[in-house]
Amino acid sequence: MSVENALDKVISLAKRRGFVYQSGDIYGGSRSAWDYGPLGTELKENIKDQWWKTFVRGRGDMVGLDSAIILPQQVWHASGHVKTFSDPLVECTQCHRRHRQDHLEEAFEDKKGRAAESMAEIVCPDCGTRGQWTEPQQFSGLLKTYLGPVDNEEGLHYMRPETAQGIFVNFNNVVTSARKKPPFGIGQIGKAFRNEITPGNFIFRTREFEQMEIEYFTHPEDAPSWFDHWVEACWDWFVGLGLNPENLRRFDVPQEERAHYSAATIDLEYRFGFQGSEWGELMGVANRTDYDLGSHTEASGQRLQYFDQGSGERYTPYVIEPSFGLTRAMMAFLIDAYAEDEAPNTKGGVDVRTVLKLHPKLAPVKAAVLPLSKKPELAEPAQRLAAELRREWNIDYDDAGAIGRRYRRQDEVGTPFCLTVDFDTLEDQAVTIRHRDEMTQERVALDQVTSYLAQYLVG
Amino acid sequence: MSVENALDKVISLAKRRGFVYQSGDIYGGSRSAWDYGPLGTELKENIKDQWWKTFVRGRGDMVGLDSAIILPQQVWHASGHVKTFSDPLVECTQCHRRHRQDHLEEAFEDKKGRAAESMAEIVCPDCGTRGQWTEPQQFSGLLKTYLGPVDNEEGLHYMRPETAQGIFVNFNNVVTSARKKPPFGIGQIGKAFRNEITPGNFIFRTREFEQMEIEYFTHPEDAPSWFDHWVEACWDWFVGLGLNPENLRRFDVPQEERAHYSAATIDLEYRFGFQGSEWGELMGVANRTDYDLGSHTEASGQRLQYFDQGSGERYTPYVIEPSFGLTRAMMAFLIDAYAEDEAPNTKGGVDVRTVLKLHPKLAPVKAAVLPLSKKPELAEPAQRLAAELRREWNIDYDDAGAIGRRYRRQDEVGTPFCLTVDFDTLEDQAVTIRHRDEMTQERVALDQVTSYLAQYLVG
Repeated sequence: MSVENALDKVISLAKRRGFVYQSGDIYGGSRSAWDYGPLGTELKENIKDQWWKTFVRGRGDMVGLDSAIILPQQVWHASGHVKTFSDPLVECTQCHRRHRQDHLEEAFEDKKGRAAESMAEIVCPDCGTRGQWTEPQQFSGLLKTYLGPVDNEEGLHYMRPETAQGIFVNFNNVVTSARKKPPFGIGQIGKAFRNEITPGNFIFRTREFEQMEIEYFTHPEDAPSWFDHWVEACWDWFVGLGLNPENLRRFDVPQEERAHYSAATIDLEYRFGFQGSEWGELMGVANRTDYDLGSHTEASGQRLQYFDQGSGERYTPYVIEPSFGLTRAMMAFLIDAYAEDEAPNTKGGVDVRTVLKLHPKLAPVKAAVLPLSKKPELAEPAQRLAAELRREWNIDYDDAGAIGRRYRRQDEVGTPFCLTVDFDTLEDQAVTIRHRDEMTQERVALDQVTSYLAQYLVG
Repeated sequence: MSVENALDKVISLAKRRGFVYQSGDIYGGSRSAWDYGPLGTELKENIKDQWWKTFVRGRGDMVGLDSAIILPQQVWHASGHVKTFSDPLVECTQCHRRHRQDHLEEAFEDKKGRAAESMAEIVCPDCGTRGQWTEPQQFSGLLKTYLGPVDNEEGLHYMRPETAQGIFVNFNNVVTSARKKPPFGIGQIGKAFRNEITPGNFIFRTREFEQMEIEYFTHPEDAPSWFDHWVEACWDWFVGLGLNPENLRRFDVPQEERAHYSAATIDLEYRFGFQGSEWGELMGVANRTDYDLGSHTEASGQRLQYFDQGSGERYTPYVIEPSFGLTRAMMAFLIDAYAEDEAPNTKGGVDVRTVLKLHPKLAPVKAAVLPLSKKPELAEPAQRLAAELRREWNIDYDDAGAIGRRYRRQDEVGTPFCLTVDFDTLEDQAVTIRHRDEMTQERVALDQVTSYLAQYLVG
């Protein structure tokens, strides 16, 4: 069921229920990043966990890596980032605010349905002045910092704008110590930083963000088929975790829009429902060829190549890169899971309920234990059950208010199971398990609850 | 069994087998941080996972949080870091290298067995000149960066030197959205950055590092007993995961050495075996009182307090902070697990073997599948078994070399189980499971292997 304005509703829900907080809000907040509250942190962890299980631990041809955010400067010279990772900025001569020229042009086109003939047509979004723009100047997207006792060029370092380069520079280390040979891949999850001029769309574009990246090394001849494999595998991962394929599409990025290193790029786009452009980039798969290993070989003098003892061939592997934005994935899962449907109320009628139909493996709270009364005879077995389940999962305990209201609170954050402890429990040593989506109920023996839930939650 | 020079041996093993690589080594490397290879990444993930399960998901009085690395500047003014997070540096007037005065003094004392009477006695460790030091100057440990289109004071931001402040500034958000009341705590795992003048001792002191922190909020009267609770709980966590209590001790930090915010601090120290000082700080528990919530209340004008509806009392909670360094924990687990003992060889004699006796839940590889021959009739069932186990765990597959050598490779990285697929497997549909520590072997049916391993690995 699709919901009008699901994006706005999800943002409001995420803020209200503590998935996401504005970073530093007691000081007026920051546009650069967001903080993740208890539910958002669990959801994010579950996405990472599923990704790592599927793409790293679950495959014999993959290993993991965790490289530093601050790498030596030379890495970013060799990768081309110092030179080319920049955007043209124009400044409004009236208010002196700067903007990306391409963003201004896109916004104009979205609004007017045609391209601007020149910058003279474009109005400053800050002060409303038309066409008073400076010539564009290149502006680096790299964040700088200084290490060591003095702020000088020797101490200048960049914060990584992508996790990928930390993988490339360790190619030989991994081949040697993990005894890997192509085709094989290295996966990494971690923070990256880009000095975005216009962060926005909630957690979609931020200056501090989290990536989940794979660099998959193959013989150059096999690169096209591995490229196809990875596009498929990424699609299947999202759909397997519940994303509706109707909200997902492939976009074959044309050459002029591709990054300088890429021989082919396919983005998976999700129907986020942004104003102006409904679809947004969820993740991308690129064929980076031998660009990166070649560049680092040249710059470092170390041979980042593979010698195939069987064939006697020495070659620089091609790289297929599936690159995911973690919080974009989170946002897509939230929007896709958002639904409003009808639930029976105690007066014999129905109420509209908000429910996040998240995949049970992604749901931040796996089950809520709800004693029908606060009396010790129910509270004690309920607390015992919660404590037992907490050995495996994130569990909520809620004894406040009418049971229908407690169900609504859990539905709204996507808890797949509500376990009600009632006075019958004292007799039959069982609880009622309510399923979030169908709202069906089953009676399950207390000593069977863990294995009952495990069917849905393990793996 | 204790091993001479375990520290050096662990460092060498960690580098050789790909637990840890020097960051950016193809460009000469960095002293600021380390990269974690496939085994190190898994070990680190397992430590984080156990920590989160024990202290966050496993407790009804804890929730998780994930705040940004780059928070608004005001946070670090209010916390006192901009003003006080600095060290006195002296410069050698001969070679112009800078050093921490307190480190120079400690090194002198370690070497000579007495304190230096003045800086005039101390020799520059870089150029060997005696006593040519400038007066000390304060040097900030905060790393700076600039956000937004221009490098100016408006864009100046600090990278967090601790994850704790991200928790304090979200106190009201969590109380409201997660409906929590004291006593309760918030846990967070994430990167932090400090401009250490003398990073060193392998992964013990780095400029980029990972913390696992808990801020536990209590009524001021209950703070002392919660302080004791947390010291105990932290000790038990390390010991429960296999750390030998003989290598662990409490250090009650005297007032003059405590941080400005702390009313009491107990460090857990581990016997790392560093040159000069055998014991090093593994983690600390501090009673931060109402210092942080009070400072942010004053600076932001938001009341970071709790109103107890039952008693009608409004108060600023006290904070008990257990603060762990993730890679220090990793280093301690590695050193503690390192052993050399004797294993039978094929000639009827014994060889010395190196073995990491890591707790199975921490071990980076849970099991290795070892077919006795590369022939398809063994490779196929072995690959099938590996694929099945990979649905749950990180599994190695090794078909190269003599079986004894393959055992040694697995022992050395702490793999608790080796599963040998032999020609009998084709008859009895079973494998031999070898236990790492006792080197005992058992025959287990193929369809029982998952549940056999689960006994040791789940939870």
